[in-house]
Amino acid sequence: MGELPNLASDAVLKQSVPVPDYFEEVKGVDYSKPESRNARAKDIVASMRTMGFQASSVSKACEIIDEMRAWRGKHKSELEEHDQKGEFDDDGYQKTTIFMGYTSNLISSGLRDTLRYLVQHKKVSAIVASAGGIEEDLIKCLAPTYMGEFALPGKKLRDEGMNRIGNLIVPNDNYCKFEEWIVPVLDKMLEEQEESAAKRGKEAMDADALVWTPSTMIDRFGKEINDETSVLYWAHKNKIPIFCPSLTDGSIGDMLFFHTFKASPKQLRCDIVADIRRINSLSMEASRAGMLILGGGLIKHHIANACLMRNGADWAVYINTGQEFDGSDAGARPDEAVSWGKIKAEAKSVKLFADVTTVLPLIVAATFAAE
Amino acid sequence: MGELPNLASDAVLKQSVPVPDYFEEVKGVDYSKPESRNARAKDIVASMRTMGFQASSVSKACEIIDEMRAWRGKHKSELEEHDQKGEFDDDGYQKTTIFMGYTSNLISSGLRDTLRYLVQHKKVSAIVASAGGIEEDLIKCLAPTYMGEFALPGKKLRDEGMNRIGNLIVPNDNYCKFEEWIVPVLDKMLEEQEESAAKRGKEAMDADALVWTPSTMIDRFGKEINDETSVLYWAHKNKIPIFCPSLTDGSIGDMLFFHTFKASPKQLRCDIVADIRRINSLSMEASRAGMLILGGGLIKHHIANACLMRNGADWAVYINTGQEFDGSDAGARPDEAVSWGKIKAEAKSVKLFADVTTVLPLIVAATFAAE
Amino acid sequence: MGELPNLASDAVLKQSVPVPDYFEEVKGVDYSKPESRNARAKDIVASMRTMGFQASSVSKACEIIDEMRAWRGKHKSELEEHDQKGEFDDDGYQKTTIFMGYTSNLISSGLRDTLRYLVQHKKVSAIVASAGGIEEDLIKCLAPTYMGEFALPGKKLRDEGMNRIGNLIVPNDNYCKFEEWIVPVLDKMLEEQEESAAKRGKEAMDADALVWTPSTMIDRFGKEINDETSVLYWAHKNKIPIFCPSLTDGSIGDMLFFHTFKASPKQLRCDIVADIRRINSLSMEASRAGMLILGGGLIKHHIANACLMRNGADWAVYINTGQEFDGSDAGARPDEAVSWGKIKAEAKSVKLFADVTTVLPLIVAATFAAE
Amino acid sequence: MGELPNLASDAVLKQSVPVPDYFEEVKGVDYSKPESRNARAKDIVASMRTMGFQASSVSKACEIIDEMRAWRGKHKSELEEHDQKGEFDDDGYQKTTIFMGYTSNLISSGLRDTLRYLVQHKKVSAIVASAGGIEEDLIKCLAPTYMGEFALPGKKLRDEGMNRIGNLIVPNDNYCKFEEWIVPVLDKMLEEQEESAAKRGKEAMDADALVWTPSTMIDRFGKEINDETSVLYWAHKNKIPIFCPSLTDGSIGDMLFFHTFKASPKQLRCDIVADIRRINSLSMEASRAGMLILGGGLIKHHIANACLMRNGADWAVYINTGQEFDGSDAGARPDEAVSWGKIKAEAKSVKLFADVTTVLPLIVAATFAAE
Repeated sequence: MGELPNLASDAVLKQSVPVPDYFEEVKGVDYSKPESRNARAKDIVASMRTMGFQASSVSKACEIIDEMRAWRGKHKSELEEHDQKGEFDDDGYQKTTIFMGYTSNLISSGLRDTLRYLVQHKKVSAIVASAGGIEEDLIKCLAPTYMGEFALPGKKLRDEGMNRIGNLIVPNDNYCKFEEWIVPVLDKMLEEQEESAAKRGKEAMDADALVWTPSTMIDRFGKEINDETSVLYWAHKNKIPIFCPSLTDGSIGDMLFFHTFKASPKQLRCDIVADIRRINSLSMEASRAGMLILGGGLIKHHIANACLMRNGADWAVYINTGQEFDGSDAGARPDEAVSWGKIKAEAKSVKLFADVTTVLPLIVAATFAAE
Repeated sequence: MGELPNLASDAVLKQSVPVPDYFEEVKGVDYSKPESRNARAKDIVASMRTMGFQASSVSKACEIIDEMRAWRGKHKSELEEHDQKGEFDDDGYQKTTIFMGYTSNLISSGLRDTLRYLVQHKKVSAIVASAGGIEEDLIKCLAPTYMGEFALPGKKLRDEGMNRIGNLIVPNDNYCKFEEWIVPVLDKMLEEQEESAAKRGKEAMDADALVWTPSTMIDRFGKEINDETSVLYWAHKNKIPIFCPSLTDGSIGDMLFFHTFKASPKQLRCDIVADIRRINSLSMEASRAGMLILGGGLIKHHIANACLMRNGADWAVYINTGQEFDGSDAGARPDEAVSWGKIKAEAKSVKLFADVTTVLPLIVAATFAAE
Repeated sequence: MGELPNLASDAVLKQSVPVPDYFEEVKGVDYSKPESRNARAKDIVASMRTMGFQASSVSKACEIIDEMRAWRGKHKSELEEHDQKGEFDDDGYQKTTIFMGYTSNLISSGLRDTLRYLVQHKKVSAIVASAGGIEEDLIKCLAPTYMGEFALPGKKLRDEGMNRIGNLIVPNDNYCKFEEWIVPVLDKMLEEQEESAAKRGKEAMDADALVWTPSTMIDRFGKEINDETSVLYWAHKNKIPIFCPSLTDGSIGDMLFFHTFKASPKQLRCDIVADIRRINSLSMEASRAGMLILGGGLIKHHIANACLMRNGADWAVYINTGQEFDGSDAGARPDEAVSWGKIKAEAKSVKLFADVTTVLPLIVAATFAAE
Repeated sequence: MGELPNLASDAVLKQSVPVPDYFEEVKGVDYSKPESRNARAKDIVASMRTMGFQASSVSKACEIIDEMRAWRGKHKSELEEHDQKGEFDDDGYQKTTIFMGYTSNLISSGLRDTLRYLVQHKKVSAIVASAGGIEEDLIKCLAPTYMGEFALPGKKLRDEGMNRIGNLIVPNDNYCKFEEWIVPVLDKMLEEQEESAAKRGKEAMDADALVWTPSTMIDRFGKEINDETSVLYWAHKNKIPIFCPSLTDGSIGDMLFFHTFKASPKQLRCDIVADIRRINSLSMEASRAGMLILGGGLIKHHIANACLMRNGADWAVYINTGQEFDGSDAGARPDEAVSWGKIKAEAKSVKLFADVTTVLPLIVAATFAAE
């Protein structure tokens, strides 16, 4: 049968260069340690660091979150007055401005409690959400969302007035309750708009006039809902702005649409220019900027784009299921944002490929809610 | 070694019920036919119908597109005046209002020429795009986008001022050219806003006052760019509205942000309420509504939500790479929209799981551009 | 501007049927509870149950694992002798036969320690692995695998003799060491094959003759490696068969290929028929069967197919990233296996869409390693 | 409101280096050309080259396929006798050995006709398939597979004896027919095995003895089925080996399992060692090697691993939906194979992210079946 050709053995048994000292061995959980039984979040995350694949990304996400939270700069007293911008801790030291983005479905899911916790305890500085991420928070104060299944048939659900979001169900009555709640609020807001316009005359649209924007509307909703289970309530309370440039893309949009008939010929206006000014200003004023992106699409791009105004974020954590192969921004890796100046070249960043709900409970337990 | 247990043979060799007559055999291309050599789009698509998996979805997408294009209702003369709404063909018969949504990356890609073709020849009735889907169309009139690679390192690209979008490259100079082009346009638009405000006084924000919206801004950009390679140009020319509720989420947002400093204390405003009224009205007036969704996120939800206003679209084609398991709207199947009343229960719909660029050239060649 | 058409308000404000009593509210972590700080695995998993999306799947996976582990049938003494088959607990009660499948990459990752733990402590009954899932376990006894990055360039790595597996690195020297280790073992195995053939003559290939199979080879490797960090070692020790029908598809295949030259005209043989008999028999003898599938492809199908022999598994947990849209078995949901009789119609099953490394540490900590 | 900070304008309006001459503009279909109407495959593919994202990958896949098909080396007469190995064209010139891998589902789909065409016309040199890719080809000669839907409920299907593969349906009777067909074939094969063993005595397992392997079994099945619609038939006819190391992982495995009871104490054996020798030898003898991988998992790794024996393939086309983030071989990019020496560093390669069924009809029409 002949000799083994060198071709094959040389290829298979090629020698490697010596392994550099800094190489780190892959290893996992040591179950002989008692703390590995029903382990705590920090121990689980620690053991994932050297596991490889996305386990390592979970661990790296926690490391980056801890770093952005721990960073401290100068004391306020050391700074010129015009430099006293951005976020400061309770002792007066500069800290990171953390921009958190989340998609609508996360508010529909049980992660709303986690997101609310982060806002209630001022763990983040500013938020970008998609429209459902605003209204579903409010609606959950009026009536619950329920567990369902991905495979429930749409026709039957529509007949019953049950709306499906993945494996969740929102009864359509919830939106009827929402309409009842929001119409008087919109009436009031229109009244205030009109008062301002009457007072300002031809300067009604000037920069310092009262023109509602998504973020000011959302703040008002948070005030009006006055419910401690709400993300918006705590954002209002803690002066954490929530941006949502496409605020009309959902049930609030339906309500604003209805309201145009009710209000005619008056009309509520919602200006998105003032909000781009506001979020970009936050980015420029930040001593350091961190991005925590939960999901893809608009909320991801909007935060990254704001961070371009400061020539890049200093830390970035992306968690989503998007893939880069279709050239979507949703799936782009942090390194694409580096090319645009949206993340600094020297920034620590990670993209964790996961449905946010599978990993955020662990991550938050090991970081923001570890102590 | 014993007998074969009946347990196994019964399970493996279970009899099936007779195959119903309407069952259709899986089969593929018959290469013995001369038309299979270097085949034409329609022949390829026809052979994919019984191939299964997503080949069948490609074929079904074409079938649905052809159906929504072919539908005709009553002649205008048969309708009461207040029912003379929606789209009509050149002979005066009702036809389908086709809502097309596309994400920013498709305009960055070579599909821009395809999208422009559809708009130039009035194949669609209204468009929803993400912000990049607006500005990249304009910027391409000023300077080209180039082929690149997914793996090009971000730091080097940033040093060179080269921005990466998947495997494409946009030199940052293109954005400088864009700024030069757009600033005078924004100046003019602000002037017009101010004129209106001065004239209207306290009614400056009334429904019929001049308050810019994303769709009216985009129409103006299309007029100003005056370039036959542009989607926006033809949309303006053909009165096809382009909606983009998050118009500030990109380079136009950067320019509007800069403009707030230049214009101060005046400020351009961009109202999203009037646009939700406008798109929802289009939906309600449509005799039939078809959705052609290219990508996910905002553009998908926005069209579906508009179609809720008419109790559901009559046809729906989704093409994207999103998956439903994470509960994102981007990945939701048409049947989820059925539960919400955004697609009619009896509507024909398909979700084609594919990067749009791999399938749209074939699909358009076999449908919109078949004759 | 006219009236709000009923069309829209009826569609948007459609009443829903009353919410049934059994509906369960979506809710998340209650951070006011002290156990939510740096939470334990079981508490995290418990809170994920009503979160929705894949968080609920994580929780359901744990629930199913706990159920399959907890199930007990009759005592051995109550059974006829010919029914005394399948698995029994230490007290003599029937318990579930748990089939665990894992792909090669999980052994390359730090999850090897977890998989080893499950085998060492007899938490599973039988294993199906892909070829790399065998050899990488052995090789890790000889030299480590290292952390790397997904983006490391292939050419440079090949020049250095560094092989990449996702974000891991295996120096090629490890395979040289493996060759040194395995050749004498193969020599010995060939010798034994030849002795048997000589003794059996024309019955050399009979059912009860010594003809090596993947599972008997793997058992021998486990014995020879004699290393407590090894999955194979403990599988040998605990008589847990490891199946790998494509054992030649990797480094062991390379070594067997080389060995054909060394051994000629003799040749080691590795028969896959005896192994299909063996795994199917395990399935038929099982009192109850549970599937724990980590990854996709061969290992998933092979266990499911074995469970067809008993007309379906009683529990099934799939964890992988495969999608069903391309018709691959890897991405098929449990319900597809139900149609084949591979999972019982009434079985509890779940498909958890996740990279195994992101969720298995939490799942094992909350189930197999909870006490 | 202050001045626009330079920070922002410098970041946004950063100058780029001059665009190098070799940069290629992104562009798409020119619909003003008559050949764009109902376009031909080659024209569509040509226009996709500069479209970006996966459109460009479709085009590159075609380019690579054309290159591997077009390559010619020396004439047989110029070669020493021991170098007269690998593939030659009809005129006696060396040509590329093309390894094609496909997963089971593609044979279930209508692509079977395409795969059969490639084999019938000797467009490929060797094949690796998963087990279903063998048996489903045979079974389709006995009875058809039908179109179905992804969402058909498993329980109902099982009750009716209808097996689902994605959106396809295979009546279980087809497997009963398969059993009737294959049992006599297996009987005959066992007889031949036993004759050989009887003749060879203690040398029954030597390298040159008759010991069945997956590839020799498959060749025999192809001969016995004797049906021009069959891939296996043409592979037998054209001496194109089909490898399938896990041949027992499916219905053939079920049949071999049943057969062990029937044959006892005799037993058919199927050796995978001889096949690894055979495929690796094909790789080493190839003048040039091209890989065409349709799907992931075993079939992908097996071809790549064979190509290591020649220090790398010269061309590689991957088409599948796997992602690299979970470290699976299925999702690994070609560059990972470069690190292992399975693809040459200088080889042209592409990974096309797509369900094979969406793109292969176009690709084959534009390449193998273009003339």
